[in-house]
Amino acid sequence: MRAAGRAGLALAAAALALALAAWRRRPRPRPLREVLFFPSPPSCTEALLAEAAGPGAATGRGVVSRPCPCPLPHGDCSLSRLLSRLLAARRSLEICLFAFSSPQLGCAVRLLHRRGVRVRIVTDAQYMGLQGSQIGLLRQAGIQVRHDQESGYMHHKFAIVDGRMVITGSLNWTTQAIQNNRENVLVMEDAEYVKPFLDEFERIWEEYNPINYRFFPKDSK
Amino acid sequence: MRAAGRAGLALAAAALALALAAWRRRPRPRPLREVLFFPSPPSCTEALLAEAAGPGAATGRGVVSRPCPCPLPHGDCSLSRLLSRLLAARRSLEICLFAFSSPQLGCAVRLLHRRGVRVRIVTDAQYMGLQGSQIGLLRQAGIQVRHDQESGYMHHKFAIVDGRMVITGSLNWTTQAIQNNRENVLVMEDAEYVKPFLDEFERIWEEYNPINYRFFPKDSK
Repeated sequence: MRAAGRAGLALAAAALALALAAWRRRPRPRPLREVLFFPSPPSCTEALLAEAAGPGAATGRGVVSRPCPCPLPHGDCSLSRLLSRLLAARRSLEICLFAFSSPQLGCAVRLLHRRGVRVRIVTDAQYMGLQGSQIGLLRQAGIQVRHDQESGYMHHKFAIVDGRMVITGSLNWTTQAIQNNRENVLVMEDAEYVKPFLDEFERIWEEYNPINYRFFPKDSK
Repeated sequence: MRAAGRAGLALAAAALALALAAWRRRPRPRPLREVLFFPSPPSCTEALLAEAAGPGAATGRGVVSRPCPCPLPHGDCSLSRLLSRLLAARRSLEICLFAFSSPQLGCAVRLLHRRGVRVRIVTDAQYMGLQGSQIGLLRQAGIQVRHDQESGYMHHKFAIVDGRMVITGSLNWTTQAIQNNRENVLVMEDAEYVKPFLDEFERIWEEYNPINYRFFPKDSK
């Protein structure tokens, strides 16, 4: 009986080792690799935002009936894809952006914040105060925003979703750029691209900590 | 003897099949994946350009003695890496760039053109004429340049080396951006990223064909 027990144990251990080896060799899901090009034609993204806000919820731009009756196209486009990738965030969203004035992207970011996603934004001091900037609205919503104090521009245009996906390119998040400019946005899940951007964000976030701000006369007016 | 010959042939065929299978399974070189961050401190890139120009050749900025005696740092930095990736071009270089005024990058592109690399440049009509732009010098050197005629900006900032490597990011090729701004540049050999950029370049190149230019009074002065 003792020998049979030992044989059983050995068999179980072998089965476990085999299962572990199979688990290690399992096909990994391919990382997402997407390139979006702009301009993206004017389009309605209300349904996308309403769906992300949850049933019966307001999007921050009012409660939207589905399907939205507005005359704009409602189909797939580069802007709707960019929004979808952002709205996939469940835990965290880091944004490092030179210019941010798109109401649709601003709405998406506030929605994620309300949904409990930890949102942190770094932006450029000279551009954050321009007319139409979303930065004030985002701060009012309780989102943490830090900015540079340098003579050069904080010219990055990237976001990191849940620490696993980087969205980066030439596109500032402005309606002008989205609808009129030739632009590109890469959506990448390759860790070799995501990690350097995460490290860069954390480096800048610490450097732009308000405890390091210098309040010169021009800032204290 | 005939049977032995047949056996020998079968053996050779089997060996060939095995060799072919091994060749197919050979480890492929990993695609290059690099992320460069800026600002990059002022540095001397003359030795890099002189090396690319060949022994005893002029860089277009005069013949440089090696090592260069100037007081600037000569080590590895984001700008030197970007230059090295560009100078690796052997056959073709497509450039799609909003603003191009960096003398060092301009020099590298002219050098590649002189070396026989097929260089094509697409740029923004409003920015190509600004003071310090390299576009005039590149055209004088015989490089083909096309520009937009749209109200929006041609805001891309990418280059494609030998149809196998895309270099893209937030960085305009200006000394201001290189030395003062927070910027990123991705260097990627993944075909899934390179192909869409190549297609975008060819699309824009055809669209901006001078035969399509409209010469309004303001252009004919």
